[in-house]
Amino acid sequence: MSQHLLSIRDLDADTLKRLVADGQAFAKQGPTHRQDLLQGQTIAMLFYEPSTRTRCSFELAARRLGADVLNLDMQSSSSRKGETVADTVATLAAMGVRLFVMRHEERAAIDAAARALPDGCHLLNAGAGTRDHPTQILLDLLTLAREGHDIQRLDLSIIGDLRHSRVVNSWLQAIEHLGCHRLRLGAPGVFRPETVPPEATLSDTLADSIQGAQVIMALRIQQERLTKGTTGENELFHEHWGLNEARIAEWAPQAQIMHPGPMNRGVEIDSALADGPRSLILKQVENGVPARMAALAWLFSGDKQR
Amino acid sequence: MSQHLLSIRDLDADTLKRLVADGQAFAKQGPTHRQDLLQGQTIAMLFYEPSTRTRCSFELAARRLGADVLNLDMQSSSSRKGETVADTVATLAAMGVRLFVMRHEERAAIDAAARALPDGCHLLNAGAGTRDHPTQILLDLLTLAREGHDIQRLDLSIIGDLRHSRVVNSWLQAIEHLGCHRLRLGAPGVFRPETVPPEATLSDTLADSIQGAQVIMALRIQQERLTKGTTGENELFHEHWGLNEARIAEWAPQAQIMHPGPMNRGVEIDSALADGPRSLILKQVENGVPARMAALAWLFSGDKQR
Amino acid sequence: MSQHLLSIRDLDADTLKRLVADGQAFAKQGPTHRQDLLQGQTIAMLFYEPSTRTRCSFELAARRLGADVLNLDMQSSSSRKGETVADTVATLAAMGVRLFVMRHEERAAIDAAARALPDGCHLLNAGAGTRDHPTQILLDLLTLAREGHDIQRLDLSIIGDLRHSRVVNSWLQAIEHLGCHRLRLGAPGVFRPETVPPEATLSDTLADSIQGAQVIMALRIQQERLTKGTTGENELFHEHWGLNEARIAEWAPQAQIMHPGPMNRGVEIDSALADGPRSLILKQVENGVPARMAALAWLFSGDKQR
Repeated sequence: MSQHLLSIRDLDADTLKRLVADGQAFAKQGPTHRQDLLQGQTIAMLFYEPSTRTRCSFELAARRLGADVLNLDMQSSSSRKGETVADTVATLAAMGVRLFVMRHEERAAIDAAARALPDGCHLLNAGAGTRDHPTQILLDLLTLAREGHDIQRLDLSIIGDLRHSRVVNSWLQAIEHLGCHRLRLGAPGVFRPETVPPEATLSDTLADSIQGAQVIMALRIQQERLTKGTTGENELFHEHWGLNEARIAEWAPQAQIMHPGPMNRGVEIDSALADGPRSLILKQVENGVPARMAALAWLFSGDKQR
Repeated sequence: MSQHLLSIRDLDADTLKRLVADGQAFAKQGPTHRQDLLQGQTIAMLFYEPSTRTRCSFELAARRLGADVLNLDMQSSSSRKGETVADTVATLAAMGVRLFVMRHEERAAIDAAARALPDGCHLLNAGAGTRDHPTQILLDLLTLAREGHDIQRLDLSIIGDLRHSRVVNSWLQAIEHLGCHRLRLGAPGVFRPETVPPEATLSDTLADSIQGAQVIMALRIQQERLTKGTTGENELFHEHWGLNEARIAEWAPQAQIMHPGPMNRGVEIDSALADGPRSLILKQVENGVPARMAALAWLFSGDKQR
Repeated sequence: MSQHLLSIRDLDADTLKRLVADGQAFAKQGPTHRQDLLQGQTIAMLFYEPSTRTRCSFELAARRLGADVLNLDMQSSSSRKGETVADTVATLAAMGVRLFVMRHEERAAIDAAARALPDGCHLLNAGAGTRDHPTQILLDLLTLAREGHDIQRLDLSIIGDLRHSRVVNSWLQAIEHLGCHRLRLGAPGVFRPETVPPEATLSDTLADSIQGAQVIMALRIQQERLTKGTTGENELFHEHWGLNEARIAEWAPQAQIMHPGPMNRGVEIDSALADGPRSLILKQVENGVPARMAALAWLFSGDKQR
C-alpha cells in the first residue's frame, strides 16, 4: 500500500502535529538550504487547474528536498490526446515518477489517479474543486504554531465564501482531529455553507462572526466558481463583510488576519489591512514551502527503500 | 561532422544492438540512480507538436544522465516571432546547447534544423509526422530483449493505422537491418500502407494478420491525422480489427501485446487486454527512459571533448 | 536597500566596465562549466511578453551559476486570477525567491515590481516595452570587447526602427557613461526617434548613416509594435535601408554587422550578410549567456549574506 495525501482526513492528530513540527525544522533552515532527502526522485506537477502560486510553492519545496520536478501542462487539452487521468499517471509511474502533486476541479479525478498508481507511488492532492486542499491547512497550522498559537486554545473565525471553499472544508476536518477552543464561521447569503459541523457556529453578521477573535481567516471570493446571475454579490459582500482596519479595531482589536490567497483586494479585504502589522498573509506564503517539504518527505517516509 | 539521430537508417545493425545493450544496463540502475555522463550539458526540448509523454520520457532520461533540460514552448506561435527552425536551433547552439530533441510534423523541418547546427551539436528526431520515430523502435527492441525475445526468430504482427504511422515506418527500417523471422502487417481500407516492403506480408483480415503470432503490436488510430469524411472508420475498425482477449485467445494464444501509446481504449484495443497479463504496454513506457538514455549518451560518444 | 538592474542608468561607467570584464571571464569557461556562486538560489522568470530567446539565455546563465530556475507562465491570463504584479513578486519573495528576471510591455509594471520587493531581493529588467533592455547592451559591449573594439574609439552606426526600440534607448544611456568616438543613428519616416541626444547624429539616408562605419547595428523592425496602416513600410524599408553585402562593401567596407535578434531576414538584413564573415550576430547570442551571468552575479554581490 502506498501512502497518499488526498485529504486532511488521511492524517491523524499525531501525524498532523508531526508534520507541523517537521515544517518548523525546515523553516529554520531558510530558503537557500538544500537537503538530499529526496535526491534522485522526480516529482510530477499535474495541475489541471491553473495555480502559479501553489505550483511554485511545491516546486520550491521539492527542490529544497533535492528532488527533480517534472512540470506537465495539463490545462492545454491538446497535450492530452484524450488520455484519461488514470493512464497519464500510470504512464508517468512506469517512467519512474514516484510522487504526483495534482490539482483538479473534481475530487473524483484525484481519486481515480490514486487508484491507478502502483505500489510505491504517492499522490498529493494540491487542491480539488470545492472539497479539499490539505497542504493549505498544514501551512496555516505551521503559521499559527510559529506565531505561538495553540489551536486548542484558539478563538478562530473563518469568514467569506464558505460554500465554494476547499480551505474551510479541509480546516473543519483538521479541527475534528485537533479541536479548537472556539470556531465561528461567518458568511452571508449565497456564501453560506450547506452544513455546519458541531465544532462550529455560523453567524450571519460580521460583528457576530469576529467579535473578540484572536485570529480571523478571510477566504477568497471564488469569482470563477460563482454561477452567473450572482454579480453584485461582491459589492454587497464588500459593503457588509469586507475586512478593514476600522472594523477589526472595533470588534477584534487583538486579532491577526490570515488569507489563503490570492486576495481580491478591495473585496474581501482592504489593502491597508492585508499589508499591515496584523496580517499573517505573507507568513502563510512563506510557511507554504516548509509545510509542503514536510508533506512531501512524509509521503516517502514509509517506503522501505527508495 | 556531428552525429545526429534522425531516422533508424542512421544506425547500422551493430549500433542498434549496442544501444539495446546500453539500454539494458541503464534499465538495471533503476529510476533514482543518477549518472554524471552528461553533466554540464543542456538538452533543449523543441516540440512543435504536443507530446507530454515523449517529452517527459526524454526529460527523465536527460536528468538521469546528469544533463540540464531546457523546455521551449514551440507550439505557441507567439513565442516564435516568425523565426525559422534553422535560426532557432542555431541561436540555441550559440548559447551553448549541444543536443536538441525535436518533434515536428514535417521531416523537412527536422532536416533543416540538423543542417543549421554547427559541428559538435547533435539532433535527435523525437517524432516526425508520419515518417520517423527512431527512439520508439529502440524502446520496443529493448522491451523485446528484456522479455527474452530474439528479433531474428520472432513472429511479429503489426496492425492498425499503417498508413499514418511513423512507428511502423521506423520499424520496417529496423527490420531491414536486423531481420525478423516473420513479419505480418494488417490493416483495413484507409489504414493500409502505400507500399509493403519485401520483408513483410500484408493481410486484410485480423485473423490472417495475427494467427500464431508471438508478439502483436497494435498501433494508435491517429484520429488527429485522419482527413474529414472518414469518421465511422473508428467504429468499423473496432468491430473488425479491435484487439480483445477473446480474439487473441482464439488466434494467437501465446501472444504478448504491445502498443506505442497513447491508446484509444475501446478502439484499437480493449482495456482488459491493455491492462492484462499479456500486455507489455507499461513495460514499453518504462523502457523508454533507459532506451532514450542510451540514444542521448551515444550521440555525445563520438565527441573528442566536451 | 536591494540592488536592481532596471536600466543601464543603474550602472556607472566603472560598473559597466567591471561587468564586461566579468563577462569575459565567464565566457572563457565555456558552456559546460558550472559555478556554485548562486547555489541554493532560485531565479524566477516572469515574462509577461513572450521571448524564447531571452528567457533561454537567462535560464542557461542562471544554471551555469548554480542557481535553480522557476519558470512562470505570465502570458496566460488564467494563471493570474487578477493578481497584481506587486502581489505576484511579493508572494514569490515570501517563498524564498531572491532574484526576479522580468519582461513586461510597460516599464511602470517593472518599477511596481521593484517597489514591492522586500530587502535582499533583486529585480532584473529583461526588456520593458520600447524603453529599456539593459542586458542586451551588456552583451553587445562584451561582443565589442571580445572583438578588440574600444567603444571610446569606435565609429558606430545604429539603423532601423529607432522609435520602437528599447535597444537603442539603452545603448544611448550606455554611451552617456562610456562615450563613443562617433555615433550615427539612421532611420526613415515612421522609424525616426522622437529625440536625438547630443552624443549622436541622425541621418536620413543609409549611405550617410553608415559611410565608413566600423560597426553597424541593424535593429529589428518591430512588426508587432507597429500600428495598423503602416503595412508597406517593411517593403519600403527593405528597398532603401535593408542591409546587404553590396551596400556594405560600397559604403563601409571594413564594417562588422550586429543585430539584437530575432532577425526579419529579407527585411532589415539579407541572409547572406547575416550569415557571412562580417556578421557578429551569433557571437552576440553566445555572449548573451556570460554577460547575463555577470549581471546576475553582480546583483547578489552586495548582499551581506545569502
